[in-house]
Order: sequence, then structure tokens, then C-alpha cells
Amino acid sequence: MFKLITTKSDGTRIGELTTPHGKIETPFFMPVGTVGSVKSVSPWELSDLGAQIILCNTYHLYLRPGEKLIKNLGGLHKFVGWDGPILTDSGGYQVFSLAKNDKECVIPAKAGIQNLDPRVKSEDDTRNLVKITDDGVIFKSHLDGSEHLFTPEKVIGIQLDLGVDILMPLDVCPSGKATREEVEKSVELTLKWARRAKEHFEERIKNKEVSKRPLLHGIVQGGLYPDLRKYCAEELIKLDFDGYSVGGLAVDLETRKMWDVVKQMGEILPADKQRYLMGVGTPDDIIQATKLGMDMFDCVLPTRLARHGSVYNKCHSKLDLESSNNYKLINLLNSEYRTDSKEINKNCKCESCSRGLSRAYISHLIRSNEILGIRLTTLHNLFQYLELMRDLQK
Amino acid sequence: MFKLITTKSDGTRIGELTTPHGKIETPFFMPVGTVGSVKSVSPWELSDLGAQIILCNTYHLYLRPGEKLIKNLGGLHKFVGWDGPILTDSGGYQVFSLAKNDKECVIPAKAGIQNLDPRVKSEDDTRNLVKITDDGVIFKSHLDGSEHLFTPEKVIGIQLDLGVDILMPLDVCPSGKATREEVEKSVELTLKWARRAKEHFEERIKNKEVSKRPLLHGIVQGGLYPDLRKYCAEELIKLDFDGYSVGGLAVDLETRKMWDVVKQMGEILPADKQRYLMGVGTPDDIIQATKLGMDMFDCVLPTRLARHGSVYNKCHSKLDLESSNNYKLINLLNSEYRTDSKEINKNCKCESCSRGLSRAYISHLIRSNEILGIRLTTLHNLFQYLELMRDLQK
Repeated sequence: MFKLITTKSDGTRIGELTTPHGKIETPFFMPVGTVGSVKSVSPWELSDLGAQIILCNTYHLYLRPGEKLIKNLGGLHKFVGWDGPILTDSGGYQVFSLAKNDKECVIPAKAGIQNLDPRVKSEDDTRNLVKITDDGVIFKSHLDGSEHLFTPEKVIGIQLDLGVDILMPLDVCPSGKATREEVEKSVELTLKWARRAKEHFEERIKNKEVSKRPLLHGIVQGGLYPDLRKYCAEELIKLDFDGYSVGGLAVDLETRKMWDVVKQMGEILPADKQRYLMGVGTPDDIIQATKLGMDMFDCVLPTRLARHGSVYNKCHSKLDLESSNNYKLINLLNSEYRTDSKEINKNCKCESCSRGLSRAYISHLIRSNEILGIRLTTLHNLFQYLELMRDLQK
Repeated sequence: MFKLITTKSDGTRIGELTTPHGKIETPFFMPVGTVGSVKSVSPWELSDLGAQIILCNTYHLYLRPGEKLIKNLGGLHKFVGWDGPILTDSGGYQVFSLAKNDKECVIPAKAGIQNLDPRVKSEDDTRNLVKITDDGVIFKSHLDGSEHLFTPEKVIGIQLDLGVDILMPLDVCPSGKATREEVEKSVELTLKWARRAKEHFEERIKNKEVSKRPLLHGIVQGGLYPDLRKYCAEELIKLDFDGYSVGGLAVDLETRKMWDVVKQMGEILPADKQRYLMGVGTPDDIIQATKLGMDMFDCVLPTRLARHGSVYNKCHSKLDLESSNNYKLINLLNSEYRTDSKEINKNCKCESCSRGLSRAYISHLIRSNEILGIRLTTLHNLFQYLELMRDLQK
């Protein structure tokens, strides 16, 4: 249940989201814990960092260790040692993005939807890893090649077995290169699956399969076509989801048209429901998106970049909400940092900076493939993101 | 400065070792932080675990990032964020053991000492990585193949630049397969280098190059020959080192003859100086060795095994000092642990066990190559070792 407390003059929405595992102040950022662990970070460190909620991936947990095993062990919260709220994604995005890595991924022409993703070859081929049908998505595990089917119902079932607080329905996420016709088809299928997911979810809730009702989002697709986005959003709103997600804009927002979608969504989506801009973005992206009315964010950037030695630094002690250059990224593997006695950021209160560990030391650790190096940059980046959210919540 | 407080009826020596960075209760265990980081563990976690002192490797820090860089940044303690005592080894052992990995390591016949290590081929070859001369050891970096010379004086200089609390002199560590003649030669060279190291050390101390006098050990070699061990120990004792190390028995003590050396050393080495059994061993080895009068230990086992999913468990709540089976090793990658809801050890107070994280979760993390899995097993193993030392100090 979302409660909008106030909308600030700059557009930022201050609110409170109630979940089965507690309340979350908005706007908020969710560290990504793909297989049940935010990479290199312990659950108690996440608490210390001030994380309010974490995100896990349905696709990964379904394949390994399996949602039934987790259910038998008392659910995902107990399994990963985190008693705050957890959100899981639909798994659909991973089905496509991991298939990409195989370079053999094909959607057969007969599936009716082609080129949803530039990473997916559009030809009939027996080596295909992903097949989209009206019923769902057939894919092969990136772990062992075994074949699996995700339907809207199955994906809801997996997330209910995991016992998470916020669920996403199975959706189809077209690439920026998809034709209008392909995007249209993806919207129709996303809507069809959203209806089935909602229906199945309500039925399972009615059967009292979980003790407390979690939240189910609708996911808006539609590429960069304003009319398709509008249509998709309006159809989902009719289904009255607990909240709404904006899909298809993951990682960072690079073009004016992408920002136009965010702006449009901020205007169309109901003010009394939380809005989740999926997979976005840089700290400066998040600042801009909160001003356009987005409330929830997740992104692999702070953890992924950290593993490559890159750290975010807030440029000035005070945020300039008009600027899109509040944060600067530096790479500690650059030779200039080998002898740099300064902490990553003297104003930062993360474990690494507050203890005065030097850029030289962290650079040395990462060069030497020491896990501690990655831990320190990850803690720093997550602290920067979570501190940003606390600033935005003021 | 070592102060022997009492020798218990079972032989365990309770004492106190004073170093420039504080006092240490004996017997004690030193977690191994090869390149300036105990693998995956932060300095504040080491404090929480109750580590009194850590060990770093001279060879690694000399090659990368270099002792001069560390000195310029304020010394090793500041560099790694650890203000307790630090011991560094002589680097000699690494020169041989890392050369092994190259499979091209050769000691030329003309060096006079052959087959000191079974991992080193004994033939003249231009591709050799290690050459022992009277002056020192010439070796090639395992990082970039560059050639370096370690002399007794240079190794002392590196450790003084690092600013550590306890230094080891350059020694020659023969393998168990070395002939008596080879071991004899290694003892003579070790003694010769020990004299040079001591002389150089005292000169540098006299020149007030460090603010507080650190401790310098002598290292006893001599393979499994009691007369050579006795000779080496007695010659070193004449030089009046601050403490004594027993080398050449690293990792675990497998044979009766190895134990005989430990027993002999406990009898010969001066009671008023600390004794360091280098690179040993399993928890049960440490229990037995303390009863034979050893005070200091280090070993890669708890951290290295942890990275492969193996964890030590104390079998009973109370130690049986007569038994050599106080600890059991289990591997969490074994299939039986995939669904095991129990913590690694219900009586353990490490972060992982005290928070109830399951063997199933840790097994899943390690299977998924998640850093957190390694962190949890490492914290557990180090806790087991350090808790053992606290038990032995009682």
C-alpha cells in the first residue's frame, strides 16, 4: 500500500510504501542481489548501509537453487538472512539478456514476434534458446542448457513460493531497434500476460497461500512510442495493480526520447500508486527521474562498476537538483591512483572512506585480484546511492 | 619482548609478547594477509574476530605495490588499515613456492645447493627462475618475469620499510626429499644469512631508522635431522634473536618425524623467547604443538579451504587436549548440504552461524560463485581458529 505524503515543488514525491516486511520511505533504491546476494555484500552490511529493500532475480533463483527448495527452507527472507522487504523481477528480462550471451539465441518466425531484442537473431533455427508463444516463453538455462517454460501463472507462482513482498508479472521487453509493429505486438502480449498474472495472483491470494498479501505491479512497455506507452499504461491501470513499473529503459537514460517516456509515465500513472523505473540508472538519472515522479529504482551499475574499480563520487557537498552532473565516476585502476593517499571521497561516510583507506590501497587490492578491493568499492558505491536517496527523501 | 607467565601442566605456555603495536597473548594464531589483505576479510572484521596480529608476505608486497610506495604512504599498518601488530615472513619461502607454479624453475648445479625443494628441477637451464648463491637468491617475479635479488640485508630493509612489528631473516628451506648433504648446506647458508641479517638489523636500529625497535626472529632449519636442527638452533641462540621460528614444516604435520622436530625445538629453544612454528597447521596440529611449547602459528588452511567450501567444526563443546580429533572438516559443496537448513555449527559465534545462515544458503552461494559464500566460510574458519587460541590461552 502506497501513501503519498507530499509532492515537492521540484516534482519529487515523498511517500511511504507498506509491504509485508515493513515500510519503505520513497523515493528508494534497491541494491540488486541477483541469486540471493548483493554481490560481495552481507545482509548486515546492507542494513548498515541503510538499504530499505533489496531486489532478487526470479530467473536465477528459479534455476538455482530452485524456488521449492527456498520455500521448504522457510522462504527467501530466511534463506538470505534479510528480514526487510524483497522485490523480485519477472524473469522475462533475464530470459532474453542471458540468451544473448550464448550468441545462438533465435526467436522463430512462427512465434509472431520478431526482433524484440537486437541480441536475438530473427530466424528459425533449431539451436534457439528463446521461443515466445502466446502462452509464455520457452528458454534454455544458461547453466545447463535444460529447457524451461515461463508462463504468467508460473512466474507468479515462483515469486509466491519465494515469499517476496513485491512481484512483477511476466512481460515482453522489446529492444530500441524493434519496429513499431514488433513493439505493438510486445505490448499486446505484455497486456495479455498482465491480465493472466493478475487473475492468477488474486486467486492464489484468495486461497490464502500467503499469510500477508504482497504487492503486484503492472509493467508498462511500448518502446519509445508515446501512443503505445499511453495505451499500455491505461490498459494496465484498468486492471488496478498495486503499483506500476516502467520497463524497457534499463541501465542509463541516454536519449531525449527515453526521458520523454519517463515524463509521460509520471503524468499518466496514478498518483496514489508507487512508480518503479526498472533497471535505471546512474545517480544523476535517478535525481532527474524522481523529479518526473518516479519512486523506485534498481540498477546493477553501483555493484557492477565497483567490481571493475569504478567509484561514484558526489562532486559537491550539496546536491544541485537542476544539474545533471552531481556525480563523477573515477576508475581506481588508473595509474594516477596507485600512489594516491586520499580516501575515495573525504566527505563519504562509507566503511572504506570513514576509515581512511586510501585509493592507493584499494587500487592495489583490485590489481591483485583481492576480494576486499571489490568489497570496498561496492560498499562505497552503494553508500553513495543510498545516501542520495536519503537526500532526495528530505 | 616475550614474558612467559606460566607453563601449564600439559605443556602449553601462557605468555605475553610486547611489540611496537601492542601486546599479544600467547599462544596465538596469525591470519595470513598475503598482499596486505586476509583474503575476503576487512580489517574491522579481523578485529571483531579477535585477531591479535596478522601476517603479510614480504615477497608479494615487495613486488606489488613495492615497499617504498607503502613507506611513502605511512607504512604497512596505515596502508592496510590495521593498527595491531604485523609479522612479515622472509620472502624466501615464496621465492621457491611460487617458482614452482611456473614449472620452469631450476637451480643450476653451480649454485652448490640442489634439490632443496622437490618442486625445483635440479639442472642447469637458462630458463631458471631461482638461483641461490652465497650472497642471496636471484628469482624472477611471478607477475612479470622481471629478475630480482633477495639478500639477507635487502630482506631486512624491505621489512623495516614496511614498518612491521616482527621480522624474519632470509632463510633456505629444504624439502623433505633433500639429501642430508643438501640439508647441511641449507643450514649453513641459513646460519650465514641469519648472522648477516642480525648484523644489518642492529645497525639500522642503531641508526634510529624506526621509532620503536621491532622484533627479529632466527629461523631454525635442518629438515628431519635432529642433529642438524640442534646445531642450527644452538648457533642461532648464540646470536640472541628476539624470538625463534621453526621452518620447513609448513601446512600440516603428517609424520612422526615432523612431530619429533617440534618436540625437540620445544626442549632446545630458550624458554624466555617466543617460538613460532611457521605455516602450521590444522586446529588439531596447533593444539598438539602448543603442548610441545610452541607459541605462534600461521597457516593458509582456514582461508584457503574456506574458498573451496570447506569449513572446520569443533566436534564437542569442550576441547579434549589429549585427542587429535577435536575438529572435523566438512565441504559445503557436498550434495547433502544443498538442502541443509542448519547453520555451519550451532555452537559457533561467528557472523554466519550466529545469524543462522544455513549450510544450504552458503552452499548455494559458493556454487553460484558468489563472493559472499567465500566470505562466510572464511569468517567461520578464522573464528574457529581464533576461538581455539582463546581456549588454549585459558
